[in-house]
Amino acid sequence: MHPSSGSTALLTDQYELTMLQAALADGSASRRCTFEVFARRLPNGRRYGVVAGTARVLDAVENFRFTPEVLTHLQPILDAETLDHLARWRFDGDIDGYPEGELFFPDSPVLSVTGSFGSAVILETVILSILNHDCAIASAAARMRSAAADRTIIEMGSRRTHEEAAVAASRAAYIAGFTATSNLGAGFRYGIPTAGTAAHAFTLLHDTEAAAFAAQVESLGKETTLLVDTYDITRGIATAIEVVGPNLGAIRIDSGDLGVLARAARDQLDALGAVDTKVVLSGDLDEYAIAALRAEPVDVYGVGTALVTGSGAPTAGMVYKMVEVDGRPVAKRSLNKQSTGGAKGAIRRHRSTGTATEELVYLLSGPVPEPLDGDRTLPVPLMRSGVRVDGQSLQDARDRLTQGLVSLPWEGLKLSQGDPALPTVIHPHS
Amino acid sequence: MHPSSGSTALLTDQYELTMLQAALADGSASRRCTFEVFARRLPNGRRYGVVAGTARVLDAVENFRFTPEVLTHLQPILDAETLDHLARWRFDGDIDGYPEGELFFPDSPVLSVTGSFGSAVILETVILSILNHDCAIASAAARMRSAAADRTIIEMGSRRTHEEAAVAASRAAYIAGFTATSNLGAGFRYGIPTAGTAAHAFTLLHDTEAAAFAAQVESLGKETTLLVDTYDITRGIATAIEVVGPNLGAIRIDSGDLGVLARAARDQLDALGAVDTKVVLSGDLDEYAIAALRAEPVDVYGVGTALVTGSGAPTAGMVYKMVEVDGRPVAKRSLNKQSTGGAKGAIRRHRSTGTATEELVYLLSGPVPEPLDGDRTLPVPLMRSGVRVDGQSLQDARDRLTQGLVSLPWEGLKLSQGDPALPTVIHPHS
Repeated sequence: MHPSSGSTALLTDQYELTMLQAALADGSASRRCTFEVFARRLPNGRRYGVVAGTARVLDAVENFRFTPEVLTHLQPILDAETLDHLARWRFDGDIDGYPEGELFFPDSPVLSVTGSFGSAVILETVILSILNHDCAIASAAARMRSAAADRTIIEMGSRRTHEEAAVAASRAAYIAGFTATSNLGAGFRYGIPTAGTAAHAFTLLHDTEAAAFAAQVESLGKETTLLVDTYDITRGIATAIEVVGPNLGAIRIDSGDLGVLARAARDQLDALGAVDTKVVLSGDLDEYAIAALRAEPVDVYGVGTALVTGSGAPTAGMVYKMVEVDGRPVAKRSLNKQSTGGAKGAIRRHRSTGTATEELVYLLSGPVPEPLDGDRTLPVPLMRSGVRVDGQSLQDARDRLTQGLVSLPWEGLKLSQGDPALPTVIHPHS
Repeated sequence: MHPSSGSTALLTDQYELTMLQAALADGSASRRCTFEVFARRLPNGRRYGVVAGTARVLDAVENFRFTPEVLTHLQPILDAETLDHLARWRFDGDIDGYPEGELFFPDSPVLSVTGSFGSAVILETVILSILNHDCAIASAAARMRSAAADRTIIEMGSRRTHEEAAVAASRAAYIAGFTATSNLGAGFRYGIPTAGTAAHAFTLLHDTEAAAFAAQVESLGKETTLLVDTYDITRGIATAIEVVGPNLGAIRIDSGDLGVLARAARDQLDALGAVDTKVVLSGDLDEYAIAALRAEPVDVYGVGTALVTGSGAPTAGMVYKMVEVDGRPVAKRSLNKQSTGGAKGAIRRHRSTGTATEELVYLLSGPVPEPLDGDRTLPVPLMRSGVRVDGQSLQDARDRLTQGLVSLPWEGLKLSQGDPALPTVIHPHS
């Protein structure tokens, strides 16, 4: 069921292939180029972004193949020389980038692709699609994870986004520290822990709420989570403990004033002796709602819509810009959307206390910044001559993000709108 | 490359399968149920929604198969009886729904699924994923199409959304009347016209802008679109006409104050004798920006980010609710999110002038509304006993939406926030 088990070559925009055709015809396709992926700004006053999707990018590049079926479709669009070129083509360039779970800021060189123009230009759309989606979700998820502090937080937003985006969103949320996902595809493809219990339909199916609870516990065990808000929540909780006893795993509330309901549910459960029965809340939670529930007795948050839509920022604003041709820096020079030419590296500087102070971006062709204690080089090699460099696990990415967030100045973790947590400094200053 | 050429069975939430297991164990899985898909409200003061994704839902249902690979993954989650049931299972129920391109309003029964509880419950997530995404995109796209009036409008947002969502977004935009898409996958899978020319990188690759333009025209012909804003737009246009002559197909501007630039570009082109050379605008266009450009000499709009993110409403708010069990209406009765029980039909009423007056939703088990001239029954059969009913083409959907929008009261086409264009009336009134 993995879409990239097929070719990813058509998950792209037509102009990339017509540019290739024109560049093959005049010989410029073989010029050595570097393209960089970066975001000019963070969305909505966010303090940081989180890199996710890099491994999916490498999957897509490996599967970017012009199969006979793909070439047949392209026949009316491209000339014979270009079709012949694509039939033999495999990506043989280099890719470097920030590893998954790393923080990014405006102008951070999150990914760079170096190779012939013809090889690098045709990867633009699929690379941006993956990074713009996955980084948007991970960036929102990290704020929710921070707001939830040490409580369990489960991703359950699959139904609110495209069916394949749902799987990628689960993965991005897991990188950002979510505990588990409801999405079985994410479990299947990426080994992410999955969770889930029952919906209102299961209660409505049965003649009584008690019958529904009994059937669920009979099948799934006392550790299950019973959904208690189909009819009356107070009666639902009483029925749940009557049916199961005080060792019930958890109850879930999916609607209403969640703060008030969580407190009342906890009190009622305690009074019934179900002191270890957990309280699970879901229903239109975002990072702000989660933060507002911090003082309430909540054990588990289930997050849906806000997660998969990036909580107001569904796309990360990444662009893919050519910055170097045959060793010469290039950049668009019109009034808007100016960029800095030249292939770039990046270092994160830290105080001796471990607190990060700046994102230092420098030209690889220029003077390298003088090394300081606490410097950390950010991009790592991801592909060399078309061959993937040994990858890292999702757990590595989770750990990296945890470390990254700890290193931010404390203002950087605020949910309110503001400046990026670190300034991006271009070295040398122009 | 079509993901649904594989199984779609894991594009779902775990709780659907654990509910199935519990219902198989107590015998309730065989109860005959109807689930309905509807939106409780339209997003952001929108006046109407547009149905898209129905055909993709039917594809996903046909491919919802528990293959050996899928069953192996589910082994730690489900008991042997459930795994055995799923190995033999195929959807054998009925699906009815609004055809693609139809308008919808709050509580419109956009899709209904009737079958055993066990068959209908497990389709929830994949059905909602598809409809929530595709309807969100089509609903935004229709407003952009209306704002563009009779001008050409091209979808080019693939890079701003998940790589598979991009293909579905192109399809939804085409249903909503877009002229073409940049996405080759959408051309491949759905036969949607594709378009595209060149990016700034192509100009930067060459030693001069003139060399880039000459290479592009040599390869793609004079009818191509030259991107003129890499350096200075006025000089870019002059160079374009110098290189190609006055028969150049089009110029594209992707940044800056588009209204002013369009007017200046048109004047300059006319002065150079290029009176038939078209002006293509792109760069952060949404329905409001398109409307604001109505008085300017623009020929083609290219829309990206705003389209694929639903222009502020990236998900359509559709839910999948069980409304009937063994012929008995059921509904959640807690304080929030109340629904009306019972399987429903829907009629759109019209004046003799053809203007729609209301969305009439009625219980199929109750008294049928007295028929009036101008009534149009909205849901159509989509699947019977698991077999797909002959489908309709994307062109049918485009025509249907055109007709639907013409029939709305004129306030319904306003871009500003307001009430739904039609009231939804539940018959009989409770």
